[in-house]
Amino acid sequence: MIIKHIKEIQQLSDKLKIEGKKIVCVPTMGFLHEGHLSLIRNAKDLGDTVITTLFVNPLQFGPKEDFTKYPRDLQRDFELSKDAGNDYLFVPEATEMYPDSFNTTVKIGDITEKFEGVSRPGHFVGVATVVLKLFNAVKPHIAVFGQKDYQQTLLIQKLVQDLNLDIDIHIVQTIREDDGLAMSSRNIYLSYDERQKAGLIYKALNQAKTAILNGERKRNVINGIMFDMLNIENEITIDYCAAALAGSLEEPDVFQDNADIVLLVALKLGTTRLIDNLIVNLNN
Amino acid sequence: MIIKHIKEIQQLSDKLKIEGKKIVCVPTMGFLHEGHLSLIRNAKDLGDTVITTLFVNPLQFGPKEDFTKYPRDLQRDFELSKDAGNDYLFVPEATEMYPDSFNTTVKIGDITEKFEGVSRPGHFVGVATVVLKLFNAVKPHIAVFGQKDYQQTLLIQKLVQDLNLDIDIHIVQTIREDDGLAMSSRNIYLSYDERQKAGLIYKALNQAKTAILNGERKRNVINGIMFDMLNIENEITIDYCAAALAGSLEEPDVFQDNADIVLLVALKLGTTRLIDNLIVNLNN
Repeated sequence: MIIKHIKEIQQLSDKLKIEGKKIVCVPTMGFLHEGHLSLIRNAKDLGDTVITTLFVNPLQFGPKEDFTKYPRDLQRDFELSKDAGNDYLFVPEATEMYPDSFNTTVKIGDITEKFEGVSRPGHFVGVATVVLKLFNAVKPHIAVFGQKDYQQTLLIQKLVQDLNLDIDIHIVQTIREDDGLAMSSRNIYLSYDERQKAGLIYKALNQAKTAILNGERKRNVINGIMFDMLNIENEITIDYCAAALAGSLEEPDVFQDNADIVLLVALKLGTTRLIDNLIVNLNN
Repeated sequence: MIIKHIKEIQQLSDKLKIEGKKIVCVPTMGFLHEGHLSLIRNAKDLGDTVITTLFVNPLQFGPKEDFTKYPRDLQRDFELSKDAGNDYLFVPEATEMYPDSFNTTVKIGDITEKFEGVSRPGHFVGVATVVLKLFNAVKPHIAVFGQKDYQQTLLIQKLVQDLNLDIDIHIVQTIREDDGLAMSSRNIYLSYDERQKAGLIYKALNQAKTAILNGERKRNVINGIMFDMLNIENEITIDYCAAALAGSLEEPDVFQDNADIVLLVALKLGTTRLIDNLIVNLNN
């Protein structure tokens, strides 16, 4: 069932809570792929009622980014989400989410000030604001996000902590194509040739991971392994490839033996911007 | 009953909601006076369970303001609030509300950028952030605020609207002493002599109101009436006395005949900063 208005979803949420239902929210920008469907299936395991939100949030796109051409297909999303176990699809209009009078900013410090935060000014303010608005509309007990947007998952967890949101955040691992390319709605932008080369991202991440598992702890060496592998391809313009401490995103020159390290990559393949990451847990 | 922890009040709120109770929240900084007690009595009329929050929010005080000397008396507040009909007193510690890792900012534009926003830089970011945190802790259906902090009431209403908070905001009129001085926890700072002169604020507001009711619409004339009356006293340092459009706080040179006008005053009486306001509704 599709719900379009904020008041409507809030009333539904109240009703479900009185019935004792555990509500799980899956925020998405739509054009669902196997990654999203995995979030929905996880959500169904975690609670009773799954509410997937579908909103291409203008606030998190830069002026030169792909907001207008971002793929949209409501009917397809409705069918796919339903088959994956979704109960309600919340699809607000931008005019209801951001009326002309809208004038509020939610900003998380530190973790948003590097990597995607540098490459996409304003992006994380847009994400924090829309996620808070969607949470306040759906009022879920649990919310599920994909690990593919790693820095975003840190932001959401900080948002929940800093603003006392009574919501458990559940992070689901990235779903990949056979060659390792992380599922993304933006993958449809890739030409056939570009798509052939896109598997290289995951290979670079794994090569760095292997080096770490073999004892490498120098950050510039680890970064260099990813950089050199990705830099071979003319079609690839690297934005960043970086090893950092998982959670804090701090970048020590040399990692400690038992550090949990996240490997982060952002690049353009042709004109399509792709991101991916891999966590190397050494602190077991 | 006094509740100290965020998780505890959230669980209580969930329990009350399952029981079908309508929860009304009264956010305060404590040291309750008749104004607060009027909020609590109003809250009791509006719902089933009243939760008064008591938190002197460090974030909304400037470095040279009176945070450390702000009056506190928990036992007295507990008794007074209970007698007024309060059910639960939520008294979080600053260390739980703002742990060292805290790093989130909530900013409302426009209406916060004048009057108190100019005089107290950072004040409204502090208010917006703490109110959002308190709302997320208490999870009320309704929240009650006093009109004395007029600009704050506009901020709260904007916060609720912009962030889709499912909370009804109820504004209660200012409670005054016999000579018209608005009740405030800060009134105890006044010396005997200063207290004798404090009634002048309400007189100035009323003189301006009378002028408006008699047809005056020129903003500088209305402002001048308040200024001249307050400026007589040596002990008074005027911060601002201003007529503005109620709601938007816009300041046209000449008000329209049917404008709703708010008269705003902020001043120091000796070393004590006092604010007050009066709304003149012409749009009936």
